[in-house]
Amino acid sequence: MTVTAPKGFRAAGITAGIKASGNPDMALVVNDGPDHHAAAVFTSNRVAAAPVRWSKQVVTDGRVDAVVLNSGGANACTGPEGFQNTHTTAEKTADVLGISAADVVVCSTGLIGEQLPMDRIVPGVDALAAALSADGGHAAAEAIMTTDTVPKEAVFAGTDSTGRPYTIGGIAKGAGMLAPGLATMLVVLTTDAEVQPEMLDAALRDATRVTFDRADSDGCMSTNDTVVLLASGAAGASPDPGSFTAGLTQACAELARKLIGDAEGASHDIAIRTYNAASERDAEVVSRAVARSNLFKTAIFGKDPNWGRVLSAVGTTDAVFDPDAVNVSINGVQICQNGGIGQDRSLVDLEPRDVLVEIDLAAGSAEATILTNDLTHAYVHENSAYSS
Amino acid sequence: MTVTAPKGFRAAGITAGIKASGNPDMALVVNDGPDHHAAAVFTSNRVAAAPVRWSKQVVTDGRVDAVVLNSGGANACTGPEGFQNTHTTAEKTADVLGISAADVVVCSTGLIGEQLPMDRIVPGVDALAAALSADGGHAAAEAIMTTDTVPKEAVFAGTDSTGRPYTIGGIAKGAGMLAPGLATMLVVLTTDAEVQPEMLDAALRDATRVTFDRADSDGCMSTNDTVVLLASGAAGASPDPGSFTAGLTQACAELARKLIGDAEGASHDIAIRTYNAASERDAEVVSRAVARSNLFKTAIFGKDPNWGRVLSAVGTTDAVFDPDAVNVSINGVQICQNGGIGQDRSLVDLEPRDVLVEIDLAAGSAEATILTNDLTHAYVHENSAYSS
Repeated sequence: MTVTAPKGFRAAGITAGIKASGNPDMALVVNDGPDHHAAAVFTSNRVAAAPVRWSKQVVTDGRVDAVVLNSGGANACTGPEGFQNTHTTAEKTADVLGISAADVVVCSTGLIGEQLPMDRIVPGVDALAAALSADGGHAAAEAIMTTDTVPKEAVFAGTDSTGRPYTIGGIAKGAGMLAPGLATMLVVLTTDAEVQPEMLDAALRDATRVTFDRADSDGCMSTNDTVVLLASGAAGASPDPGSFTAGLTQACAELARKLIGDAEGASHDIAIRTYNAASERDAEVVSRAVARSNLFKTAIFGKDPNWGRVLSAVGTTDAVFDPDAVNVSINGVQICQNGGIGQDRSLVDLEPRDVLVEIDLAAGSAEATILTNDLTHAYVHENSAYSS
Repeated sequence: MTVTAPKGFRAAGITAGIKASGNPDMALVVNDGPDHHAAAVFTSNRVAAAPVRWSKQVVTDGRVDAVVLNSGGANACTGPEGFQNTHTTAEKTADVLGISAADVVVCSTGLIGEQLPMDRIVPGVDALAAALSADGGHAAAEAIMTTDTVPKEAVFAGTDSTGRPYTIGGIAKGAGMLAPGLATMLVVLTTDAEVQPEMLDAALRDATRVTFDRADSDGCMSTNDTVVLLASGAAGASPDPGSFTAGLTQACAELARKLIGDAEGASHDIAIRTYNAASERDAEVVSRAVARSNLFKTAIFGKDPNWGRVLSAVGTTDAVFDPDAVNVSINGVQICQNGGIGQDRSLVDLEPRDVLVEIDLAAGSAEATILTNDLTHAYVHENSAYSS
């Protein structure tokens, strides 16, 4: 159920001593081939961490042999020394695996603005190499956790048009800073299908656009987000682009739900679906505006079906709609009808963790859903007490 | 020190019984002339409350005789019945004052999506008319409070080029939902200078652009924001546009600081100044991005000078800057230098309520400052428990 579910991959997770807690803090995923195809998407934050700057170069040729990850430090805003530390990590990994450093993706997560303890990282790579195994995916998922409370994994099983089976596996971390254009979020996806880099790249962009890009817990964008997809070809299956993208999207959607489900301090997982929009872009903009409203998010925490806060967020967008034609339902109760008072708000039950907000723009036929969380005391506590 | 400081104005604040608390909830400001010039700016929220829709029409001819305000109900998302209620309130006010309803601005603040209790509002107007006095400004400031803990007033005393004195006075309310393109915020400004409507309008837009528009407590935009400026001409002074705008800006800045200083649940008032920007727009965009970061705002609540969260917010903007040239100071300590680690973060003292974050973009010579607050347990509590 993880990155080692597809054939041709080994992984490991170990404790290098980066985290003061003593929890696992380094992971490695290795593609043993025969193919070493890859694609990746990165944060659009212009203040990109050293490992992001490095890894963008690594993936340009469509080949990646290994991904080495650490928690306990973001290696962001660390200047030339920070970049050199990423380079050293890649070189060390290449060295122990007998590959090229130019084929090693590096991912880091943790506090911004501190140098990594290289005296822990370098021996950590040796320990990772020694621990690599064909069922090491779960240990890798555990080692990339920061404020995550559970490891996050997903798997998808498909077949190509000739009936030959293939598998997609994934691990993810990310709890705070979940946001647009990716969340702080490190995701490693693997597949044993035979897929060329161009198709991997297109499939990954399509899949992330409607999954990770629509998981918006707190509107904050990380310096370190990375989603990397490796293909070994070991299953010998050649799925068509459409079915492969659909399977990849399913795996990414599962990981995105798990990220939102474990967001810092959240007590509600909220899906904001905007429909009957003039365009998918309009639907996404409207859903995201509501997902970004602290007033809406605190109301849900307080189990208050405050639809006025939904409408006031909708009203800040440039989407096509008539304010007197908008309908809003929360958990199936249409509390706002034609922009005004609808069913009694006391009918809305906000006890369950899952909340569905549906916004009918009455302007077309497109739709989009953004996943978010409520804003809670625990979020404030965790993010005021935890320097990350 | 309030709207009745300038000559030619009377005001009142009374308890009409709209609020369950029994606190004052209706206010009236009357311009007795000789001039009845006016200008106003309103929320840019497309879901505009009934009083906003009404008052936009009232000010188009540049004449306003009275402003009637209520707290305890926003009259937003209330459909045709809500608009009729605003109309009735204006008609009743015109009736008791012997003026035209077309010259009565109406402002409401409170919960969205509920009809106003007109059986309280209509007798409230009678009570307001009976209570009008030349020193009623403070009572008016108290009657428009919602979650505000203190009334907010300001005054500016100036002279025209011939040495003739004039005064600008103002009252404001607003605590939650403080945001861009205005905050939930009702503001009444008065002056006894002789100023034509066109100059009033230009001065008001200039003043709000750099004051209320840059007070961004929680990023949420209200359906009801209104800033209205009335000129009586009673002082006989004719200030030039530049000095009048400067005085008005000073009064607005004082009110904006008081709004931020009383924001819901805040424990720090934060000024985010971006300088050496390529344009004022860039500086404003960067400061606002930081002001909107929940992670930054929770860090300040936790007295954590987490500059990584400042840089990660800066990196989400399209402003001109080189990530390796940005400097960040918090309360005078330059903790980020050239995009990397600067002075020791332990040198930053975040005990005082006032916090100054300075971001040097090293890209030009423009600057702008956004005022905001930290994100606290009290904010979450107030906004999860208070349906507004």
